[in-house]
Amino acid sequence: MKPNKNYQNIAQSYLFSTIAKKVNEFSSKNPDKKIIKLGIGDVTLPLCEVVVKALKSASEEMGVKETFHGYGPEQGYEFLKEKIGQYYREHNVNLDNDEIFVSDGAKSDLGNILDLFDINNTVLVPDPVYPVYVDTNTMAGRKIIYINANADNNFLPLPDENIKADIIYLCSPNNPTGAVYNKEQLKQWVNYANHNQSIILFDSAYECFITDENLPRSIYEIDGAKTCAIEFCSFSKMAGFTGTRCGWTVVPKTLEFDTMNLNKMWLRRQTTKFNGVSYIIQKGAEAVFSPEGQKQIKENLDYYKENAKLISDVLTKHNIWHIGGKHSPYIWLKCPNNMKSWEFFDYLLENVQIVGTPGSGFGNNGEGYFRLTSFGSRENTKEAVERLDKFLG
Amino acid sequence: MKPNKNYQNIAQSYLFSTIAKKVNEFSSKNPDKKIIKLGIGDVTLPLCEVVVKALKSASEEMGVKETFHGYGPEQGYEFLKEKIGQYYREHNVNLDNDEIFVSDGAKSDLGNILDLFDINNTVLVPDPVYPVYVDTNTMAGRKIIYINANADNNFLPLPDENIKADIIYLCSPNNPTGAVYNKEQLKQWVNYANHNQSIILFDSAYECFITDENLPRSIYEIDGAKTCAIEFCSFSKMAGFTGTRCGWTVVPKTLEFDTMNLNKMWLRRQTTKFNGVSYIIQKGAEAVFSPEGQKQIKENLDYYKENAKLISDVLTKHNIWHIGGKHSPYIWLKCPNNMKSWEFFDYLLENVQIVGTPGSGFGNNGEGYFRLTSFGSRENTKEAVERLDKFLG
Repeated sequence: MKPNKNYQNIAQSYLFSTIAKKVNEFSSKNPDKKIIKLGIGDVTLPLCEVVVKALKSASEEMGVKETFHGYGPEQGYEFLKEKIGQYYREHNVNLDNDEIFVSDGAKSDLGNILDLFDINNTVLVPDPVYPVYVDTNTMAGRKIIYINANADNNFLPLPDENIKADIIYLCSPNNPTGAVYNKEQLKQWVNYANHNQSIILFDSAYECFITDENLPRSIYEIDGAKTCAIEFCSFSKMAGFTGTRCGWTVVPKTLEFDTMNLNKMWLRRQTTKFNGVSYIIQKGAEAVFSPEGQKQIKENLDYYKENAKLISDVLTKHNIWHIGGKHSPYIWLKCPNNMKSWEFFDYLLENVQIVGTPGSGFGNNGEGYFRLTSFGSRENTKEAVERLDKFLG
Repeated sequence: MKPNKNYQNIAQSYLFSTIAKKVNEFSSKNPDKKIIKLGIGDVTLPLCEVVVKALKSASEEMGVKETFHGYGPEQGYEFLKEKIGQYYREHNVNLDNDEIFVSDGAKSDLGNILDLFDINNTVLVPDPVYPVYVDTNTMAGRKIIYINANADNNFLPLPDENIKADIIYLCSPNNPTGAVYNKEQLKQWVNYANHNQSIILFDSAYECFITDENLPRSIYEIDGAKTCAIEFCSFSKMAGFTGTRCGWTVVPKTLEFDTMNLNKMWLRRQTTKFNGVSYIIQKGAEAVFSPEGQKQIKENLDYYKENAKLISDVLTKHNIWHIGGKHSPYIWLKCPNNMKSWEFFDYLLENVQIVGTPGSGFGNNGEGYFRLTSFGSRENTKEAVERLDKFLG
């Protein structure tokens, strides 16, 4: 058997292991100093009450012959797809239920969607970037090119007609930068894709953090997107499902390339290589869309947003250039005094015992930048902000 | 963007839709006649009490900040891998925890594992076969060759040194035939694979139906398997998890091909393209291995086995050749009077209103055969058996 040699080309990432090592070293030398982690990419608030109730009730149903559920539809139960469709209609996007596919999370689908594309496609990835976009294509042996996201374009790169790409990754609100495309900017990407017969893979996992009604929460708010874009979304950040696992992918029926219909292809992929998300988990996800569920998740999102605001405010006060934080849980800042990313990491750890994520870990354009997140507790975030205020002042 | 053209080569299966159509036609013409379905491939008994209790308790944990679980390890929690390891040790197979990968089900892993293999490998598939083995490789563009499973070899084909294959699918107890390999037979496959540097993909999803201690429940009961085999197993049939979704895959650390280690590759694949199974579901799966859980699932398995015995006995009584049913939920019979598979389907529906699955739907060698399953209720199974007894007698 010949193994897939492309695996030899995947870069090893030492980002989070190096962070852990440095933190451990510091705390063993300074056992009395309290370290505050603002590098957390995972939610920390528990599931909402209505979700827990739904999960328990569905678990009970599974224990009774009359209400037991065996194999479900691979693409998700209608009861959940219906609710997701309604959620889209709230921001004027109309989807048919069979354009919505429920999955165990955006990460799975972002990887698995590549099954539908030929190896001989050029992939365009913004730098800095969520590493999964790069690694999944490297595994398959596709050619990857990068587009610069930097301070000049506010970390929102726009298409360049001189650069031809077949598969384009966009993430808005962005991980790691928190930057959000507006409608005019996304329209440029949609036009580029339709003109070049490219496909946009749109990662909207953080759309729930958008509060400005003029900012697009779905790429389908842009005319023409239904002939060039697949959208990936998730309950992970919206409702704290990082460990509960549920998401969805939208594949419009109007997506046709070389006479092949991507909606039909994805349905075939999922029915052949997937068996659907647990009935129990889908019932928990459904509860997110109840009026009470919407109220409860909003409280949690507001909590994270308030944390983000506290961090953003102290940076503004001390004239530290940054983006994100407003429609995103991430704050992306320029390291002061032209420090490099790891230099600033050490500086913060050493002086104020705050841990963040060096921007260079997300790509070349991340060098000199730093990511802080709002997923910590209010208490810790406040304390971190006070330390920063004192230290920077 | 160039789509993956291999999707055009996937055969469309009309097996289950044709069955549904024929059944609907019959019942609209004969509304008074009660149809009994013995074609069901899904479990019908609800989840065990201890599993439901564990699912509810884990759901509650997720609603409390102190016991909330965010992102878990992609390869599964240690608490579950530890229990799966113990389960293997009961039949003398020793695995390290990091050779066990928890997944959302065997179907996902059977498809996704192909990421690790080059396209230029020849795939050997027994005929008749679970269609997923064929479709997943067709999607990727691999060459598929078939090996005949038929009455001459009791539907247990053995390796032929003149046929060279890189990737070999074995399923024992088999779906659709219910045939089970003994240790000597599996040893021949292991020897062939090690000699030819092939990999065996061993689907053991029905191992829990084996009661004869001399029959292997895992391919790792065979010396040499750890250098040539990956095993896929599932809670679906063992504990009724078809709609709850949990399974596991064993990738031994000793699996090396062209200096590449498959255990490391699979870990990399899963950490990049998967985000683990829901904490709640893993806690439910853990409960299956408690003493009470083992007792409760045994009751359910015994129920299905008794159904299988009832069906097998009536076929034996009327001299109808069949296999399976003893260590498997499936009974595979030769259609009487040399009827073809669909002919027998119509014959049973018309005369005794029993619905089964035509063997020809699983491959060329299935022609003239028929599959019945033991997943129905006792009451319906008994009534079906009585009807058959009367009709055949």
